[in-house]
Amino acid sequence: MLNQEHVVIGKSLNKVEAVKKAKGDLKYSGDIMVPNCLHAKVLRSPHAHALVKSIDTTKADNLPGVHAVITHEDIPEISTVHNAVYAYQSQCFDSYILERKVRHVGDRVAAVAAETIEIAEEALDLISVEYEILPLVVDRIKTMKPGAPVIHEYVHRGDKRVDIRNNILASKEIEYGNVEKGFREADLIVENVYETSRANNAQLERSVITCCPGEGGRLDVYATTQGIHTLRIALAESLGIPIHLINVHRLYLGGSFGAHIHTGFIESICAFLAIKTQRPVRLEKTREEIFLSCGRHPETIRIKSGVKSDGTLIAHHMDLTDDTGAYATGAESKLSLGAGDFVSMYRCPNQKVTGRTVYTNTPPLTAMRGAGNPQVHFALESQMDIIAKKLGIDPAEIRLKNLIRVGDVLYGAGQDIVSKIKSNGTASLLKKGAEIINWKNRDNLSTDKPWVKRGIGVARGFHTSGCGSEKPSELYVEYTGAIVMFNVDGTVNLNIAAVDMGPGGDTALAAIAAEELGVPFEDVNVVDNDTSTSLFDCPTHASRNTYVVGTAVRKASIQAKEIIKAWAAKILEVPIELLETRNGTVHVLEKSDLAISIKDVVRTGHSQGWGTIMGSTSHRPREIAPHFTVCFCEVEVDTRTGEVRVVRVVSGADVGTVINRQGVEGQIEGGVHMGLGYALMEDTVIDDTTGAVLTTDFLNYKTLGPRDMPKIDTIIADTYEPSGPFGAKGCGEGVTNHIAPAVCNSIYSATGVRIYSLPATPEKILTGLRKLREEAK
Amino acid sequence: MLNQEHVVIGKSLNKVEAVKKAKGDLKYSGDIMVPNCLHAKVLRSPHAHALVKSIDTTKADNLPGVHAVITHEDIPEISTVHNAVYAYQSQCFDSYILERKVRHVGDRVAAVAAETIEIAEEALDLISVEYEILPLVVDRIKTMKPGAPVIHEYVHRGDKRVDIRNNILASKEIEYGNVEKGFREADLIVENVYETSRANNAQLERSVITCCPGEGGRLDVYATTQGIHTLRIALAESLGIPIHLINVHRLYLGGSFGAHIHTGFIESICAFLAIKTQRPVRLEKTREEIFLSCGRHPETIRIKSGVKSDGTLIAHHMDLTDDTGAYATGAESKLSLGAGDFVSMYRCPNQKVTGRTVYTNTPPLTAMRGAGNPQVHFALESQMDIIAKKLGIDPAEIRLKNLIRVGDVLYGAGQDIVSKIKSNGTASLLKKGAEIINWKNRDNLSTDKPWVKRGIGVARGFHTSGCGSEKPSELYVEYTGAIVMFNVDGTVNLNIAAVDMGPGGDTALAAIAAEELGVPFEDVNVVDNDTSTSLFDCPTHASRNTYVVGTAVRKASIQAKEIIKAWAAKILEVPIELLETRNGTVHVLEKSDLAISIKDVVRTGHSQGWGTIMGSTSHRPREIAPHFTVCFCEVEVDTRTGEVRVVRVVSGADVGTVINRQGVEGQIEGGVHMGLGYALMEDTVIDDTTGAVLTTDFLNYKTLGPRDMPKIDTIIADTYEPSGPFGAKGCGEGVTNHIAPAVCNSIYSATGVRIYSLPATPEKILTGLRKLREEAK
Repeated sequence: MLNQEHVVIGKSLNKVEAVKKAKGDLKYSGDIMVPNCLHAKVLRSPHAHALVKSIDTTKADNLPGVHAVITHEDIPEISTVHNAVYAYQSQCFDSYILERKVRHVGDRVAAVAAETIEIAEEALDLISVEYEILPLVVDRIKTMKPGAPVIHEYVHRGDKRVDIRNNILASKEIEYGNVEKGFREADLIVENVYETSRANNAQLERSVITCCPGEGGRLDVYATTQGIHTLRIALAESLGIPIHLINVHRLYLGGSFGAHIHTGFIESICAFLAIKTQRPVRLEKTREEIFLSCGRHPETIRIKSGVKSDGTLIAHHMDLTDDTGAYATGAESKLSLGAGDFVSMYRCPNQKVTGRTVYTNTPPLTAMRGAGNPQVHFALESQMDIIAKKLGIDPAEIRLKNLIRVGDVLYGAGQDIVSKIKSNGTASLLKKGAEIINWKNRDNLSTDKPWVKRGIGVARGFHTSGCGSEKPSELYVEYTGAIVMFNVDGTVNLNIAAVDMGPGGDTALAAIAAEELGVPFEDVNVVDNDTSTSLFDCPTHASRNTYVVGTAVRKASIQAKEIIKAWAAKILEVPIELLETRNGTVHVLEKSDLAISIKDVVRTGHSQGWGTIMGSTSHRPREIAPHFTVCFCEVEVDTRTGEVRVVRVVSGADVGTVINRQGVEGQIEGGVHMGLGYALMEDTVIDDTTGAVLTTDFLNYKTLGPRDMPKIDTIIADTYEPSGPFGAKGCGEGVTNHIAPAVCNSIYSATGVRIYSLPATPEKILTGLRKLREEAK
Repeated sequence: MLNQEHVVIGKSLNKVEAVKKAKGDLKYSGDIMVPNCLHAKVLRSPHAHALVKSIDTTKADNLPGVHAVITHEDIPEISTVHNAVYAYQSQCFDSYILERKVRHVGDRVAAVAAETIEIAEEALDLISVEYEILPLVVDRIKTMKPGAPVIHEYVHRGDKRVDIRNNILASKEIEYGNVEKGFREADLIVENVYETSRANNAQLERSVITCCPGEGGRLDVYATTQGIHTLRIALAESLGIPIHLINVHRLYLGGSFGAHIHTGFIESICAFLAIKTQRPVRLEKTREEIFLSCGRHPETIRIKSGVKSDGTLIAHHMDLTDDTGAYATGAESKLSLGAGDFVSMYRCPNQKVTGRTVYTNTPPLTAMRGAGNPQVHFALESQMDIIAKKLGIDPAEIRLKNLIRVGDVLYGAGQDIVSKIKSNGTASLLKKGAEIINWKNRDNLSTDKPWVKRGIGVARGFHTSGCGSEKPSELYVEYTGAIVMFNVDGTVNLNIAAVDMGPGGDTALAAIAAEELGVPFEDVNVVDNDTSTSLFDCPTHASRNTYVVGTAVRKASIQAKEIIKAWAAKILEVPIELLETRNGTVHVLEKSDLAISIKDVVRTGHSQGWGTIMGSTSHRPREIAPHFTVCFCEVEVDTRTGEVRVVRVVSGADVGTVINRQGVEGQIEGGVHMGLGYALMEDTVIDDTTGAVLTTDFLNYKTLGPRDMPKIDTIIADTYEPSGPFGAKGCGEGVTNHIAPAVCNSIYSATGVRIYSLPATPEKILTGLRKLREEAK
């Protein structure tokens, strides 16, 4: 199949929903307007750490148009389920729907359902709460110190109650080989500490959930979610409703980047209010509320590297402190994923990771594109640059020398998710990228303004495609499904629960179905469905859509194609072995004059009552097929202001076989945008003394605008992943992970200033330049 | 399997939707309220036959709140598809969405979409139409006379244009054996003409359709329909829309009795207005509009019977004139079905049917419970009674003597739909019914009022279960499908496109799934679905739900059960052959201590990522498994007023294995109610000279109220149908067909008055009594 000429895949396909999006026709969760709907608002804590001594809701209750006011007293103390993709025993229960002890500014104190948003907001103002303010801690290192304020007395892990008064949610220690011995054998030891920022997912779409109570206790849910089946399970478990009574409808998302993998609290609040009022209830987050409840985990990462003088890594130790905020919404998975990332980037015989995830009195963090990887990539790829500089080795060369290769074992998230690498296009990406950026000339760069310094840096990376594993994981439930069904006119319905967050998952899956079935791409319709009519899927996460769901789609398509061929064999009276489908036609091998269109096969079968052609399958991935990436970045740094202008980015990805070229290019470009923001400016700023979030809108939380964007060259490696559909693997996160370190390495290359703490703000660069000048004195 | 003790089936089960119905929670098409919806109304002709010379819509167009006014000029002359269950070449195209020549009072002239129903109605008043009135014909015999007004110049059958100026839509002639020879050998020849009435389906729910235009030309449709897939095809073909863009949602119906098998015109009108306005449009029929567009075909039936003196039928000829009204909405199928019915009721070596379906200037008729059978049953079972009386044979005996038996060939609709009888419980029903009603004593009945006469009559009947056939029919597309899918909590989703019109189809299907899977009945959820997420199903018709769809459900359940067993085998480490499921548990044969609950099997499989358990299949029935029925009826006739009081009805059915006892009893009782109405009072009265419908509401169109109902004894034969799921066959129509002749035979038994024309009104009985008195003089 490797050399087969493809008809659909590999081309640049417009997204299946492109025209609808362009015309404003596509319905997002915010467009769901149910008649007779109430609107909900959440009363949020102004304090970062406090006990709710008393709440008086009398005035709010009496406000005309208010249908329900709820506080922690109304809600049985059921722990909310953060993420149903985790096996029960791995789930951390640390929160209720509404709290009697608030743990961050913006924490949930009460909620109102009213006829209009305005009435609901007025009702919030009428609720009076008496708080007993507690000491707070927002720093991830201070929170571990003896005497720090206790954020959670205990949590439940599955059914087990775990004391957690040290604010440490989870710890990890893994070692391969003998690190101490490795360091003794090293020619050079480099040790640095890196700090990462609290980037926000900054998705364009705001989260909206509408819950409609129906017949017999049924609850129909329309939500901004990356996983309809896991949201269903989470709601059922959080509220004690039988799973089959809940039906979550699949919708497109307007970006999400991980923000809706995990179940936020608004889902449970909205569902509870809908059940209580027996009216549809709609809850829409403001942008401020999004800043108060999602973002990338900030981390402190200490890396100690032992290398031989030729640049060979001989010992490596990472110590990682991961901040989950006030709740483990995103669980401690970032710790595991960061650990897997660290030990899998480079070959090294002796590796160790120690780490911990801690609670702080800050808004809970979630998943965000890369999930634990961008942090470690920043630290590790900065560290590799430092080592190369110290040893006088070409930074691209040192990466190639230590590169993890085909046949090596790759760890997705520590010991649990492991597979052997079957394809790796890094070497070719490094070569091609170096040519495009003119890497050889990197030391001879200048600008026409002497105070503007120019530099080129490099970094590389990878991300797993999904969370597959040979043995089922004890941590995750990772499988999906697909149903391929023909309409009587010969068009195809593709029924998948996997959610398209915007990057074109549905398009890639439709292309895979079309290619395998041999029908025109336009004839495949991704249907609206829900949890009642679709096969289980764990959420869209870990760049799995094309690789994992695509495999299910391909398998289901093969089943359906076999029926098409069997029917055609009956109609044409030829053996099925001689038939193949292509371009909407069933062809007979060796008889070019004998053929029948697939539409005619389906129509004939319909009129004969042969049935509906259908294929369906569930699929659990056995591997994680890492997609590798490379980034070269060229910057100009204004040494007077510290401002960085990114001039050019060459970003390359090894995604296996390309399914939709336009889609891959779009992912790469989007990854550059997000990576540059992480590198240069994006950070949720929190006041140390009050725990207040100072950046709650896009005026204060800066992202790159169109005019800030550099020229981007995208390169796609020519590889084939044997475990993927048509040889494809993932793309979305690998292409983000490697950007920030490439930027910081190019800043160093331009100025000699090393950025140890994200984002690389002008202030930090000016401080670095000042320090360099002082050292030079 | 015959002797297996069933856990679920055979019991009395509450309908799966019973509580929702009782609480008013169930959503019917009329409950669908879409935001921003326009309301449509249809301008209907006051004339029975006229040309639309001109229409001025200016004033209506200018009325504020009106969004569209359409007439035949706006609508391309696409023929509307009456019923997509017919193969294309069999379809009769005789109408447009709106007409330029109206053919019955109430015919469609124009339509309006406006902000409210009131504005739409006001707009109708502002449309001025100039008609050229044409001569009309409402009588089904006169319409065939030379010089009768021509109703359709031509129609299209498939692509073929057929001249139809004689007003005869279709003719039929079939003969088995040699009828002329048979009559020569007969000892007695009896010949009579019977007339049947224009009964209305009188379903409680009024027809509502809501069409919502969506992204990319998509159209979401919520309609009162018996077939979501056939409505989808009909709309697509009528309006020239690709099939896959239309999505019809499955809803429960509040009764229908065949009224929504065929696509009425409002569906196309509503869809056209929605596309034109690009707004959701809702069209709701008034009760008057239902009387102007549905009902049972009235027929004139001449039967000539040749019998030997021992009562053996030797020659039989039926000549049938079937009135389809102004359009072939219900097609000419009643002619075929009536013919099949006639030749299949009794063994007779020489049989002949001649017949025709004619157009008249009366509202188009549709299908109605029994579909061509109640008319022929009335005629034939009256005729058998007359023969028995003439020969002095017990009317029950003569039926038994000539009864069609196991192994005989049965014709569903002429030559096309044929199968051998595998079960027939008629004999036992006759025996048991005779005992209950005290048949032996039938000649010694009296009342305490000398002017009130009492009598007992008998009749029998049958109906096919679906329209199966060994070879695929050229006329019909008859197949269905089912998907059985487990939720992660071990409950089951049953996904079927087949519509439950109210009698409990979903309940029977859920019971079949539960029995086969071995799960509790309560754990099976019939899910909401649509044409995008379900397998093709031709409409719910011909008492096929339990027999045809039930077989698909059972097959799909077997597939799912095999997966359950395979997983359990893996978990319990025993061979799969030793496993059986029952009562929610997988048991190990011969090891009563080893077992695992199905829920635990599913939960384990989920946590291990083994997939979603699913079974799915399409099913085309190969047989028609007739369900046989018997009715004994006891009446009192007031000879002063001609009023008939039905005292007692014993109605028995041979439905094979009973799936839901309560459901079968309900069907039998409902059949009695409908059959008594047909016998005694139900008729749509049309003015001969104007074609106006005089009965357009339930004040003028009388049905039996609760106090009119007799004591009903239901008997269920103990049979097993080898071709049905668990031995089951259909029920719904057989239990209606036989009621009217039983009533008329009992009236004869009481008074000596023979009813040749339905309904048996007091006027007809008084006339009959007067005639008897005159003859006796």
